[in-house]
Amino acid sequence: MSKRTESPRVTLLAGGVGGARMATGLCAALAPGALSIVANIGDDERFYGLHVSPDLDTILYTLAGAVDVSQGWGVSGDTVRVLETLLKLGAPAWMKLGDVDFALHIYRSWRLANGDRLTDIMSDVALRMGLKCRLLPATDGVVPTEVDTEEGVLRFQEWFVERRSAPKVRRLYFKGASTTEPTREVRDAIGEADIVIIAPSNPLLSIEPILALRGLRQRLAERRTPCVAISPLINGRAVKGPLDRMLADMGLPGGAVGIAECYAGLIDGIVIDQSDASEEAALRNRGIKVLTAETYIKEPERSKSLAELVLDWAGHLNAGALAGGEQ
Amino acid sequence: MSKRTESPRVTLLAGGVGGARMATGLCAALAPGALSIVANIGDDERFYGLHVSPDLDTILYTLAGAVDVSQGWGVSGDTVRVLETLLKLGAPAWMKLGDVDFALHIYRSWRLANGDRLTDIMSDVALRMGLKCRLLPATDGVVPTEVDTEEGVLRFQEWFVERRSAPKVRRLYFKGASTTEPTREVRDAIGEADIVIIAPSNPLLSIEPILALRGLRQRLAERRTPCVAISPLINGRAVKGPLDRMLADMGLPGGAVGIAECYAGLIDGIVIDQSDASEEAALRNRGIKVLTAETYIKEPERSKSLAELVLDWAGHLNAGALAGGEQ
Repeated sequence: MSKRTESPRVTLLAGGVGGARMATGLCAALAPGALSIVANIGDDERFYGLHVSPDLDTILYTLAGAVDVSQGWGVSGDTVRVLETLLKLGAPAWMKLGDVDFALHIYRSWRLANGDRLTDIMSDVALRMGLKCRLLPATDGVVPTEVDTEEGVLRFQEWFVERRSAPKVRRLYFKGASTTEPTREVRDAIGEADIVIIAPSNPLLSIEPILALRGLRQRLAERRTPCVAISPLINGRAVKGPLDRMLADMGLPGGAVGIAECYAGLIDGIVIDQSDASEEAALRNRGIKVLTAETYIKEPERSKSLAELVLDWAGHLNAGALAGGEQ
Repeated sequence: MSKRTESPRVTLLAGGVGGARMATGLCAALAPGALSIVANIGDDERFYGLHVSPDLDTILYTLAGAVDVSQGWGVSGDTVRVLETLLKLGAPAWMKLGDVDFALHIYRSWRLANGDRLTDIMSDVALRMGLKCRLLPATDGVVPTEVDTEEGVLRFQEWFVERRSAPKVRRLYFKGASTTEPTREVRDAIGEADIVIIAPSNPLLSIEPILALRGLRQRLAERRTPCVAISPLINGRAVKGPLDRMLADMGLPGGAVGIAECYAGLIDGIVIDQSDASEEAALRNRGIKVLTAETYIKEPERSKSLAELVLDWAGHLNAGALAGGEQ
């Protein structure tokens, strides 16, 4: 194996909880600075005028070792004094934000209002919180995901949190995405990566808002290094969130094949859970390499060993893909 | 005594701590709804992009029974998780804001950004917190007090909190005040009051920013009902804050006479502490009626009995002033 493969530069496309857990393992398995995380910001929303970035913050807290592990987001032991007071003052309070969250949202909103880029703000925050990788919002633009449901079009957090993803989804809109550029940092992270990994996140809600940015899908398709996805499914179902129901509601194929379809033309391989091993043949028939492993990430140690496994496998894919491309 | 005197409508011009303590007594002594408080907003400042109104909030917390009595401002038992997190993120944190404070500032800033008037926002907040009087910002405009010191011009909170009022004051600027109207509610509260009371606040920093608003001083001078001030001095010195030193630094007369000078042409009488009784004659020589009492307000009960004393005295002044004005 080449020296490059031993210490690869890895770029992870990620949503919130699943992305954060994969990021933890990759960060532990790689040299400091070798991991760049491109995070979804389609879920971003303003609450009380403050800019909230749920996926960025979940990744931040997780990598900083501060996350509330039981719920997968928020800060462990965080208090809710601000939110309780807002409720007393008559403000809506369906989005559970802790006091540490509020501080981060205040800080981010304040710097954004002063003209700073979200990328630079999160870079400073990540440094302050001791992260050893780069945490990049997919864009500095505003690209809110909106959910067209049987009850009308809802903003993402309205649908996801306030309505607990109950209204059946007809279609998703990534508003402004096709005319909004990913940042220079994101373009570089994809262009310079030895391996691109798509985290076990919801492909429709977490990864597609990244891929939908102007030129990003093409940039990814044109890369000459491997790209692999980790299926977020365990035994054909989402560990968390509305993914499997959404795929069905939207008339998309389910299972690992459905996940691979979302990334058609982009990925060289897919990592699926052993409980979904029955799908291996169908995936291979579509020309996709498959790694079957125990993908359910519960403890951080599990995340690191999964990361090492995926990196080693993708490293071998690397040579194959390059040879194929150069023939 | 007429029925009107028994249940007068009272308007209090007030700064923070001293104003809040006087307001507590008046609120307890008067019928619900009979008290209107016109509060200084010259101290207002934006921290992290959030609109902070120190004097309004001190009065609010005090009347709601939530204030931290030992320091005179802030909420008793409030936590500082947001501020601590902001500090960790690298933000300046010299203004001590508690978590409840942050919630209030977030709420206020959010509604202001939505186009609501500060007057309406504070009215809603006061109702939510159970206040039985009207708490009115002197204006909905922006009139920041700036302090011209020997070290240059500082914004009020920079000078007062960050620099602990150390730099010697040369002059005060109430920026924009002369072209900014008091609100309709404030004009009505002054126009319809049976008695106007100036709280034992710093006349230069807390009351003058109110009086400096367009037309307010004239409106007050033209009233046909009594106006009395309560001196903030005890034994010639300020209980709290830089008042006595400021009067000296700015070449103004000190003592109760100095306070009365600040309100020349506006007040019919002044209430001074018994420790300053030696100034009675000098004040009377200037045509000002004097009530000597124990003015140091430590406990809420003390505030109520002082309020009753002042109201009774001012009620008698009332008849005299009207008779004088009608001759």
